[in-house]
Amino acid sequence: MIIFSAPKSTMAASSSLLCNPISTTKPQISNHPTLNFTFTSGSTSSALIPSRRKWFTRATVKSAAKTVDKESRLVEESVNTIRFLAVDAVEKANSGHPGLPMGCAPLGHILFDEVMKYNPKNPCWFNRDRFVLSAGHGCMLHYALLHLAGYDSVQEEDLKSFRQWGSKTPGHPENFVTPGIEVTTGPLGQGIANAVGLALAEKHLASRYNKPGHEIVDHYTYVILGDGCQMEGVSNEACSLAAHWGLGKLIAFYDDNHISIDGDTDIAFTENVDKRFEGLGWHVIWVKNGNSGYDEIREAIEEARSVTDRPSLIKVTTTIGFGSPNKANSYSAHGSALGAKEVEATRKNLGWAHEAFHVPDDVKKHWSHHISEGKVVETEWNEKFAAYENKYKEDATELKALISGELPVGWEKALPTYTPDIPGDATRNLSQQCLNALAKVLPGLLGGSADLASSNMTLLKMFGDLQKETPEERNIRFGVREHGMGAICNGIAHHTKGLIPYCATFFVFTDYMRPAIRLAALSESRVIYVMTHDSIGLGEDGPTHQPVEHISSFRAMPNILMLRPADGNETAGAYRVAILNTKRPSVLALSRQKLPNLNGTAIEKVEKGGYVLSDNSLNNKPDVILIGTGSELEIVVKAGDELRKDGKAVRVVSFVSWELFDEQSDEYKESVLPSGVTARVSIEAGSTFGWEKLVGKKGRAIGIDRFGASAPAGRIYKEFGLTVEAVIEAAKAVCQG
Amino acid sequence: MIIFSAPKSTMAASSSLLCNPISTTKPQISNHPTLNFTFTSGSTSSALIPSRRKWFTRATVKSAAKTVDKESRLVEESVNTIRFLAVDAVEKANSGHPGLPMGCAPLGHILFDEVMKYNPKNPCWFNRDRFVLSAGHGCMLHYALLHLAGYDSVQEEDLKSFRQWGSKTPGHPENFVTPGIEVTTGPLGQGIANAVGLALAEKHLASRYNKPGHEIVDHYTYVILGDGCQMEGVSNEACSLAAHWGLGKLIAFYDDNHISIDGDTDIAFTENVDKRFEGLGWHVIWVKNGNSGYDEIREAIEEARSVTDRPSLIKVTTTIGFGSPNKANSYSAHGSALGAKEVEATRKNLGWAHEAFHVPDDVKKHWSHHISEGKVVETEWNEKFAAYENKYKEDATELKALISGELPVGWEKALPTYTPDIPGDATRNLSQQCLNALAKVLPGLLGGSADLASSNMTLLKMFGDLQKETPEERNIRFGVREHGMGAICNGIAHHTKGLIPYCATFFVFTDYMRPAIRLAALSESRVIYVMTHDSIGLGEDGPTHQPVEHISSFRAMPNILMLRPADGNETAGAYRVAILNTKRPSVLALSRQKLPNLNGTAIEKVEKGGYVLSDNSLNNKPDVILIGTGSELEIVVKAGDELRKDGKAVRVVSFVSWELFDEQSDEYKESVLPSGVTARVSIEAGSTFGWEKLVGKKGRAIGIDRFGASAPAGRIYKEFGLTVEAVIEAAKAVCQG
Repeated sequence: MIIFSAPKSTMAASSSLLCNPISTTKPQISNHPTLNFTFTSGSTSSALIPSRRKWFTRATVKSAAKTVDKESRLVEESVNTIRFLAVDAVEKANSGHPGLPMGCAPLGHILFDEVMKYNPKNPCWFNRDRFVLSAGHGCMLHYALLHLAGYDSVQEEDLKSFRQWGSKTPGHPENFVTPGIEVTTGPLGQGIANAVGLALAEKHLASRYNKPGHEIVDHYTYVILGDGCQMEGVSNEACSLAAHWGLGKLIAFYDDNHISIDGDTDIAFTENVDKRFEGLGWHVIWVKNGNSGYDEIREAIEEARSVTDRPSLIKVTTTIGFGSPNKANSYSAHGSALGAKEVEATRKNLGWAHEAFHVPDDVKKHWSHHISEGKVVETEWNEKFAAYENKYKEDATELKALISGELPVGWEKALPTYTPDIPGDATRNLSQQCLNALAKVLPGLLGGSADLASSNMTLLKMFGDLQKETPEERNIRFGVREHGMGAICNGIAHHTKGLIPYCATFFVFTDYMRPAIRLAALSESRVIYVMTHDSIGLGEDGPTHQPVEHISSFRAMPNILMLRPADGNETAGAYRVAILNTKRPSVLALSRQKLPNLNGTAIEKVEKGGYVLSDNSLNNKPDVILIGTGSELEIVVKAGDELRKDGKAVRVVSFVSWELFDEQSDEYKESVLPSGVTARVSIEAGSTFGWEKLVGKKGRAIGIDRFGASAPAGRIYKEFGLTVEAVIEAAKAVCQG
Repeated sequence: MIIFSAPKSTMAASSSLLCNPISTTKPQISNHPTLNFTFTSGSTSSALIPSRRKWFTRATVKSAAKTVDKESRLVEESVNTIRFLAVDAVEKANSGHPGLPMGCAPLGHILFDEVMKYNPKNPCWFNRDRFVLSAGHGCMLHYALLHLAGYDSVQEEDLKSFRQWGSKTPGHPENFVTPGIEVTTGPLGQGIANAVGLALAEKHLASRYNKPGHEIVDHYTYVILGDGCQMEGVSNEACSLAAHWGLGKLIAFYDDNHISIDGDTDIAFTENVDKRFEGLGWHVIWVKNGNSGYDEIREAIEEARSVTDRPSLIKVTTTIGFGSPNKANSYSAHGSALGAKEVEATRKNLGWAHEAFHVPDDVKKHWSHHISEGKVVETEWNEKFAAYENKYKEDATELKALISGELPVGWEKALPTYTPDIPGDATRNLSQQCLNALAKVLPGLLGGSADLASSNMTLLKMFGDLQKETPEERNIRFGVREHGMGAICNGIAHHTKGLIPYCATFFVFTDYMRPAIRLAALSESRVIYVMTHDSIGLGEDGPTHQPVEHISSFRAMPNILMLRPADGNETAGAYRVAILNTKRPSVLALSRQKLPNLNGTAIEKVEKGGYVLSDNSLNNKPDVILIGTGSELEIVVKAGDELRKDGKAVRVVSFVSWELFDEQSDEYKESVLPSGVTARVSIEAGSTFGWEKLVGKKGRAIGIDRFGASAPAGRIYKEFGLTVEAVIEAAKAVCQG
């Protein structure tokens, strides 16, 4: 059994664990009139939807429509408020994208005011519905909605400082800046794929933790994507998987406005999207009038929610820049301010007499109920959770730890350790030992490979495949969809703090998923990239499969750890580092070929990034320093042995992670690489780009500055001069130099 | 009018231009009996298909089938030859992928023996049908077919050295190694997208150069893709465009074998591919028995060729590892040798009594006709070309130059030059001036943007959009499909030497297309990447859109030029370099923001990579060297001016391309960066990773080692310390240091 450090069982404890640290005030039940509801049914959260949301709980849409009709003026006013908050913010910044918010305001209003379940004062309340704006450039839509709904993160001054230095309202949605934003979007196609990850996490956790009558994990994932997202391959990859997994609580709105930056989508995008999605296995609905067909939108959502075995795509045909008399339905409404004159004309056209950034009182008053209502839904859930905890203590404890991100006590002890007498193995196999050891102690570890599980060695033996009918399992089969895989893992990581997704392919194919990896780094996702076949050492598959520049390319990327372990201990150490770094992803470059367990490696040494593996010098003054990483550490160890036989004082240094070494104290760095010793040789089966930093002008960096070749690995190493002899020769040369 | 250096009009001249340099012997008409055909019609090449190909020219398939029936034993023997060449080669290498060749051998046989038009002795004969194996791991299929067809590049000894050092038969198909291979495949999804590029190039050139009765450009593009390719997003992107462009002569075979590396595709790939492709706008056919349904395959190809307004997908259901009694229809036939025992069992099962690598005499004899036939089809085409040339001299001259890759005389003069008094401009705008100037003199220049034409400034004003009905135009609209765009450009580049595709997006989104860019570098494609918004200088769009590590990541990639011009002259110089480097792609990083035209820049200086812009020192001994690239060159110029006022001897160096500088002589390098001067400061709005090489331990590299921010550009520059003041301060510090 997994034990967490401080098992808590009281209601207070559970809510303290589950609450957002940003919100310090304790939720209280308000006496707002709309909150006079009763818990009439044991069904999902629909009973929680008061007031304007009632239509959604009614048996028929027609009666709901009537209720709504009475308030249609208010809805219209609210929708125009959203439109003009976007228009005004973009205008003030003189930069941004007004078109989408103007077109999608009706949909946005319905989602945030009538459909979604959330608590604005606790944006990270666990069981909230997730909303992702995949068309992230339209972020003023989301900011306006967060503002109206009462999120502290988006105040009026934040809207006024849209796209300005230090603001909470950057040019694209950033989860690490603005509470209420789930994931970082903007690069097209990422958001919809993130949403697939969010919905998958929900389905997975629900199947693991829900019990009859205790639907603790139970929310929808809504996403808006545009024509641009639809064109990107990553969205097709992720959406194929979403249907495969039967993600019935994923509802995607396709903002079908026929306009992209270059003009009418007819110039490049004439496929039948509906049919493609049906082919992918989605339930598809078309809302023909997204500009004012409120009931059409509502009915579509109701229909989508009724289909539970597959995800729904609701194609909502809208007019980009709706309301702008001269720019609507054109690319000129897409990506720049309308301009003072056109803003004025739009105000006139939509009958909006208010000054910039104005929220009419009745709109403000109406939206205010979300604060009290949010408190109620969270409190109600906390009560449900307490009842659940009472009955299923162990599950509740585990889930709470997942939600808080707390790691079980002593988890690190599960990591295997190695001694040099243990026969060598490929680090990809050692990685599998680590993954399987960790899966036993880390309930949040789950992941898989892009159709290379048996090559990447990523299967968790104690679990089955996470499939549509077995969503509680932890082996994810991504198919040959590296990009979708990466983006889905970002969604999983941001769903629940304690979920630790890992994903795998050949190291060279990080290229396929690089946009998702970059977003993981930017958005502080703890994703572990298990990247095997990390060099020419993979042999016969040849240059298309042999990474060369990839290590350098990740060393240059901010906020990501590039780890290249050399043996069993370093592989385990790399996993330790990857798990402990909760706010950055880690790339593990692992060998296809066998490597010996070396003398001097240790799990805890990895966190230093670079360390002395062996040394026969005195006073921190070796004749030469030999540096290796991963599969080439073995080579410098052997070269060091030879050189010592010749009487040299040789230091052998392992450089498993440059980023971690960079973060050490100057003293530590000097103790490993004393500045007085300029005779240095490095070897790494990858580009030498960047190595001058460590070996200096007088040193030598041995590596590969060309593409690889198709041949047995040993032959390539020899032909490319990655040998013990080459290191010895270089060492002798730099010692003389 | 465009003039080429040596206008040639004779038949001999045209064939010398159009011939493959590899084939030195002059094609001669053989007296092979099957060649007794006459030119009965003015239609496409069908009249050229003799002997076993006859069925294809007949009115009905049934009569064709009868003809084929008589020879079915030979076909079966040929198909088994293909299977066992693959099995034996993989077995000898003890590495490789036998499963696909065993399953697709019938299709391969039909394509190469009955359908395709080619000349094995001149693999680069211009009007050949193109064949791409997108599932490149199955390359032994292609090698076996090239061998049987009589290509010099794949002899028996080449098959026997499959996947060995220096062989012509690497582990995945490499166009730069094996004549007969059109493009480099292996990374899944690339080949089908390359094929879209090949087919687009054919349609484009046909519409530009063909005249009534003179169908000079007229070939099909065939491609085999597997389940893996189908799952990759890039294939969906490219296939959406293929239908949009109406590429009726693109015929894709989907090897539907239901097996990928991780097992049955059911575990991750349950979409309805047929329906998806219909949604994309393709004509879809299903061949249910790809293992032995020869006539089904033939009929499907005939049907596909009859549909001319859209591409065809022929789903061919096959059994992976067909014939292997214990491994067929399982992943164990996919990616490793069958093993001696199973090879033996397979021989028994298929009644193949021959030794390894054996080609039965009747199979050999049968295939031998392709050599003579190939000569005839090429000679016939040469005659057609001569007639065309006679009538359309100017077009013929231009097309010949495109085929040979010869550039028009004096094309470089078209490049604009700038003086410091010309008002500054963004390099993206200067790039557009270059593109438009070059389009007038380079008939092979064509390209476009991934839906950012108006931001990347890539429109050629003298041309319209290349669309289904206007394929002769040269502005390509790729939609938001960066990856597909990159892979399509590789196909265009490899269709015809003189075609120079350029493609564009924001620099940060090179991440989306990195696998295609890497393959361009590996496969020696001259593609020009017009990458604008190249730094934090893009401002408000924020960190998701601001490249940081991208310059470094390309500097680390082999065989690619990373160019970051600073002003008008350098931009023009970058284009000059990009055009002249016929065997490597170029990335141009261009600014969104205005930059001044600087004193001391010149078009021809760019080819040196780094050069002295200004210097007030004596004897190659400045006090300090300031290095800048792109938008930061302006900053070092200003800092240099200030420091000189303080009495310093300052050298200002522009470093537009590291790769080009690396290729200069040691003397030249020393003249720019004298080793005695260690006081050096660099500034670049990107990662400092790698800069230590140029500035050394005692120098300072100013850059950005974090993600960007959303704010006006000027503010970010200031906040990030990319300022004249920072350079001056650093310069003073390194001078003292």
